[in-house]
Amino acid sequence: MRTIDWVDGAVEIIDQTALPDSLDVLRLTTVDELVDAIRRLAVRGAPALGVAGAFGVALAARQFAGDPGALAEGVHRVETARPTAVNLARGARRAAARLPGGFEAVLAEARAVRDEEIAASAAMAARGADLVVELCGERPRMLTHCNTGGLAAVTGGTALGVVTELHRRGHLASVVASETRPLLQGARLTAWELGRAGVDFRVAVDGAGPFLMARGEVDAVIVGADRICANGDTVNKIGTYAHALGAHRAGVPFIVVAPESTIDPDTPDGAAVEIEDRAAGEVVAGLPAANPAFDVTPHDLITAIVTDRRTIRPPASTA
Amino acid sequence: MRTIDWVDGAVEIIDQTALPDSLDVLRLTTVDELVDAIRRLAVRGAPALGVAGAFGVALAARQFAGDPGALAEGVHRVETARPTAVNLARGARRAAARLPGGFEAVLAEARAVRDEEIAASAAMAARGADLVVELCGERPRMLTHCNTGGLAAVTGGTALGVVTELHRRGHLASVVASETRPLLQGARLTAWELGRAGVDFRVAVDGAGPFLMARGEVDAVIVGADRICANGDTVNKIGTYAHALGAHRAGVPFIVVAPESTIDPDTPDGAAVEIEDRAAGEVVAGLPAANPAFDVTPHDLITAIVTDRRTIRPPASTA
Repeated sequence: MRTIDWVDGAVEIIDQTALPDSLDVLRLTTVDELVDAIRRLAVRGAPALGVAGAFGVALAARQFAGDPGALAEGVHRVETARPTAVNLARGARRAAARLPGGFEAVLAEARAVRDEEIAASAAMAARGADLVVELCGERPRMLTHCNTGGLAAVTGGTALGVVTELHRRGHLASVVASETRPLLQGARLTAWELGRAGVDFRVAVDGAGPFLMARGEVDAVIVGADRICANGDTVNKIGTYAHALGAHRAGVPFIVVAPESTIDPDTPDGAAVEIEDRAAGEVVAGLPAANPAFDVTPHDLITAIVTDRRTIRPPASTA
Repeated sequence: MRTIDWVDGAVEIIDQTALPDSLDVLRLTTVDELVDAIRRLAVRGAPALGVAGAFGVALAARQFAGDPGALAEGVHRVETARPTAVNLARGARRAAARLPGGFEAVLAEARAVRDEEIAASAAMAARGADLVVELCGERPRMLTHCNTGGLAAVTGGTALGVVTELHRRGHLASVVASETRPLLQGARLTAWELGRAGVDFRVAVDGAGPFLMARGEVDAVIVGADRICANGDTVNKIGTYAHALGAHRAGVPFIVVAPESTIDPDTPDGAAVEIEDRAAGEVVAGLPAANPAFDVTPHDLITAIVTDRRTIRPPASTA
C-alpha cells in the first residue's frame, strides 16, 4: 500500500486525518484539491510531500495546459502550500523543470521522484538498523517522535522504517512512540503502522520522553526530518528538540533518518528556516495558543544523520 | 473561593476533573470518598493534597471513633492514596499526631494546615514576584507548566500565584501555559484560572516549550513541585524536566515555587522518590502506554527554589 501514488489520472492519497478510525483513499484531480490536502495534513511527511509536490505539478500541467500564466501560478501554489519541509518545493521544482516537455514528461518525472523515495526508504532502513545495532547492541529500546513510517513517505518510511527493520531482524527490544501533540501523529499514525507491522509498542506523552531516557529506559532516540540545514541543524516536528536535549543529557544516541532530498545545502542553519505557525484551534479549541509546527534541533545534539546514501556525524557538514 | 475546606461537617472540594466545563463542589464525608477523590485527581496539587491529607484524618477520626484498628487503617489509606507528593503524607501525619486528643483536636490541626497553606501562598507570591523582576526585569514573559494556582493549593497557589502577582503589579508581559498532557491541567485548569484573573495567556503543547525558549520568546520558566529533595532535586508533573533542559540550554531562569511543606529533607535526591505510574488509558484509550505522572528535575538545572520563607539557590542544600 502506497501513501501517495498516481492512479488512473489522479493523485491518490491515504487520508491521514481519518486514521486510525478509517482508512480512506482520496482522489485528487486539481491543484486546489491537492493544496488543500497538503494544508490540512491529509498528506504529510517530508518524503511524501516531495512526491505530492511533483504530482501536483503534473496536475497543474494538465489543468492549465495552454495558459502559461495560470500554470505558473498553479505550480507556485503547489510549491508553497506549506513552508517548512524542503521536499515539497524541491519535488515541485524538479517536475516543473520538465514542463517544456508537456504533461507526460512532467508525470514521468513525478513518478521518478516517487520511485526514488521508495528506494530511499529501503536504503535508509538497512543503513539505520546497522547503525543502531552498532551504537546500542542487538536489543535496543527505541523511542521515536511523530510519524515517520510508510505514511510519511510512499512506503517504508524514514526513522520508523529503521524501527520496523530492527523488528524484522529480531533485534528490537521495545519502542515508545511519543503521541506528538497537537495532531497526535504518533498516537494515531505511528501506533497504527506499528500495530499493522506486528510490533509491540507503548505510547507516551511528549513530555515524558526525556524522563524515560533519564530513568535508563531508552537506548536511542530516532526521528525523521523536514529539513536538514547545511550545518546539520535539523528541522522536525515540534517536540523533537526537547527529545534531543533529553538524549544529550542522558548520553543516549539521537539519530535523524531522512532521504538526501531532505538535505538543503542552501539553508545554512536552523535560524534561516521559516517555521510554520499553525492555527491556535489545533491545540485547544477556543483558546489562544502558540503553535509552531516544527522546531530546530541544533547539530551538536545529533549523533548521526542517516540518509539513503551515507551516515553523517555532525559537526561534519552535510555538503 | 477555596479549593478545599471543611464546611458543615464535611470536606468540600472543587471537582477538578469537571473544570473548565463545570464548577462543581463535592462534599466528602468518608475516608473512601476522600481517597477516591485524591486518586482520580478531583483534588490535586501538592499543597491542596497536604490539606486533604489532614482533613482526611479528621474524617477517619470521626468515622472510626472507638475502633483503633480501623482508625489506623483509615489513616494509612489517606496517607498513601498517592505516593509522590510529600505533602499528602505529611499533612496526614501532622493531623494523626493529634488523634489522642480526639476528633476536635484533629480537626483543629487540619484547619491549621489549611491556614498555613493559605498564608504560604501569599508569601510565595510576593517573594517569587520580587525574584522574577530581579532576574528578568519589569516586563517578564513567563512560561509555566501544569496547574499551580489556587486550585492546586487552597487559594493563591505557588508558581501561578507568582504569575498572577506579577499581573497585579502590572509587570507581566505575557504567559504561556503548557497544556500538560495527559490530563491537561494547564489547558483546563491554568487557563481557567488565568481567564478568571483577567490575565491574557496562550497555551502551547508540552513539546513546544523548549523551542519557544530557544526562539527567545520566554524570559523565565516557573513551576511548582510535588516533592523537593534534600539536594534540591525537584519532583514535579511529567514534562517539567524537559522544560528545565530547555531553559538551561536557552540560558533563562528556571524557578521552582513551593511551600516549605513540599521540602522533604528525608529524601536525599530524586532517585529515591517513588514516581507514580498511572493507567495507560489516561494517554490514549485502548493503547499500551508508559505513563509516569511525574519526573525529576536535577538541582543543577534549577536557578532558584522560592518557598514561603526563603529563596534557595541550588546547589545550596534545602536543609
